[in-house]
Amino acid sequence: MAIPPRQETLTFPPSQAALLAPYLPPLSPSSSSSSTPPRPHVTLTYATSLDAALALGPGIRTALSGPASKAMTHYLRTRHDAILVGVGTAVADDPALNARIAGAAGIETQPRPVVLDPRGRWDVRDGARVVAAARAGLGKAVWVVVGAGVEVAAGRRAVVEGCGGRVVRVGVRGDGGRFAWGDVLAVLWEEGVRSLMVEGGGEVINSLLAPSGNGFVDSVIVTVAPTWLGQGGVVVSPPRTVGEDGAPAPPVRLADVQWCPLGEDVVLCGRIQR
Amino acid sequence: MAIPPRQETLTFPPSQAALLAPYLPPLSPSSSSSSTPPRPHVTLTYATSLDAALALGPGIRTALSGPASKAMTHYLRTRHDAILVGVGTAVADDPALNARIAGAAGIETQPRPVVLDPRGRWDVRDGARVVAAARAGLGKAVWVVVGAGVEVAAGRRAVVEGCGGRVVRVGVRGDGGRFAWGDVLAVLWEEGVRSLMVEGGGEVINSLLAPSGNGFVDSVIVTVAPTWLGQGGVVVSPPRTVGEDGAPAPPVRLADVQWCPLGEDVVLCGRIQR
Ligand SMILES: NC(=O)c1ccc[n+]([C@@H]2O[C@H](COP(=O)([O-])OP(=O)(O)OC[C@H]3O[C@@H](n4cnc5c(N)ncnc54)[C@H](OP(=O)(O)O)[C@@H]3O)[C@@H](O)[C@H]2O)c1
Ligand SMILES: NC(=O)c1ccc[n+]([C@@H]2O[C@H](COP(=O)([O-])OP(=O)(O)OC[C@H]3O[C@@H](n4cnc5c(N)ncnc54)[C@H](OP(=O)(O)O)[C@@H]3O)[C@@H](O)[C@H]2O)c1
Repeated sequence: MAIPPRQETLTFPPSQAALLAPYLPPLSPSSSSSSTPPRPHVTLTYATSLDAALALGPGIRTALSGPASKAMTHYLRTRHDAILVGVGTAVADDPALNARIAGAAGIETQPRPVVLDPRGRWDVRDGARVVAAARAGLGKAVWVVVGAGVEVAAGRRAVVEGCGGRVVRVGVRGDGGRFAWGDVLAVLWEEGVRSLMVEGGGEVINSLLAPSGNGFVDSVIVTVAPTWLGQGGVVVSPPRTVGEDGAPAPPVRLADVQWCPLGEDVVLCGRIQR
Repeated sequence: MAIPPRQETLTFPPSQAALLAPYLPPLSPSSSSSSTPPRPHVTLTYATSLDAALALGPGIRTALSGPASKAMTHYLRTRHDAILVGVGTAVADDPALNARIAGAAGIETQPRPVVLDPRGRWDVRDGARVVAAARAGLGKAVWVVVGAGVEVAAGRRAVVEGCGGRVVRVGVRGDGGRFAWGDVLAVLWEEGVRSLMVEGGGEVINSLLAPSGNGFVDSVIVTVAPTWLGQGGVVVSPPRTVGEDGAPAPPVRLADVQWCPLGEDVVLCGRIQR
């Protein structure tokens, strides 16, 4: 029997989990969706500095939030069927994308890692942490979402499929070779994903907060750390757009807002105001 | 007797004021300063979106924070001898820079408005709100801090002095014609200012958060509103700097942190970690 790699185990107190409950997908998801066409519940979550940075720079691992926020992120992962990051994050951070938290013992409580990689540029190797976690039974195997016509190198496909993962195809529409969020969510729904946590990075979040994306967001959970990373970081700030009348579209605002201090950080929960 | 212009009156509950107390200058300031050379207590305060914007753009008035936060700002103004903004804000917003809050009845509870205008480019007119407020007895008269060798047009000087204000001189040092914060604070201290609230805008705040400025900051009070203004706003993000060893200086972080939800917003209080 292979000895699984040692990993930390975090804990997140039930009293704090209770504060998040109203913003999370139901514990026993129904087989139907309240949306037409059906799609998973989407939770957008990230940790930011006061100057809206996710990281000092692409590929610079940045300890932004404290240990309590980290435990929260891992708790949130257990509460979603799948978690999604962009290929930029997969390349820069080599994340394991599993839930390393007390109570997430069985593989069935682990989320499905999903990497958005429209052009198939993720050079995934056997040593990638997400692959190693799946091989060790510490996480589900990764799905890589690739543009419909895009060739994925045989070696990369072998790594993904070798750990039990898959290459999933979604059509790419105009707009610089990007997916429409509705298309990605429809495919994930068909594959059985009822709840999705979008974790980053900057480009993925900005595209989800943009007018073409934010209609798909059911709830937002943002951790703010009391620090300024300074100019040049990976920044969350959605593109400005102009409405049909030529006037600037109103800023994206949250409703049903709740601020919960958590260690030195604060956790903001809300829903996008329609 | 002249009838003063009508103005709104805000209220800020004592229970909320109590939360801020540890971060504010003493109610009865001593004549000495704990700093050498002596300088006022400096409180940095601003309201920001989640994407670190103070405003949609220079000159675009942006209602960011809610009514409770606005009342807090006016309460804070009564708790400082002076409030300071950059000439960018004076030009863009035409602010009155007085305290329009219940309890700030007498002129002695009003803060001294200070405008940082190193090149003397503020074209202040009789119609400026800060001038009108002073004339109506609703605020103290403005001090304009101008570079030592800079000529101020006679008409502008007449407006400032005509309402009881002054042009104050501070030497400009290298660095793109900017003041050193220590020089500004030394002059204000000599003029009797024992506590200063720095309110904005973006450039002033970024220069105060920069390594050359943040040593002068005693406390920080930031209101965060649950909205993203989108790319292109006036953004708070200090310049990145390199330490003497060539490595990037560590990010500015707050200590003694407290997060207080206030309406839909949150108020972050802290001190800069040394
Ligand atoms: N603090 C946090 O919570 C947190 C969380 C996650 C990541 N991060 C940080 O974020 C950084 C990475 O951010 P990033 O902006 O560089 O990368 P990213 O958002 O992870 O990935 C960007 C890439 O994903 C693809 N993509 C994004 N939106 C898409 C869409 N709508 N349709 C199709 N493809 C889409 C594009 O790939 P193509 O370019 O190939 O088209 C894009 O370049 C890292 O430094 C990481 O540490 C921080
Ligand atoms: N949300 C909020 O809390 C808040 C508060 C205040 C203002 N605002 C917004 O902020 C915007 C204005 O910001 P801004 O960045 O354009 O202008 P600003 O910071 O108000 O003023 C910038 C100018 O002040 C002078 N200055 C700044 N730092 C200096 C230093 N260390 N020494 C000497 N001079 C210095 C410079 O004048 P010179 O260029 O002449 O050298 C600089 O251009 C407005 O849109 C306003 O609505 C928002």
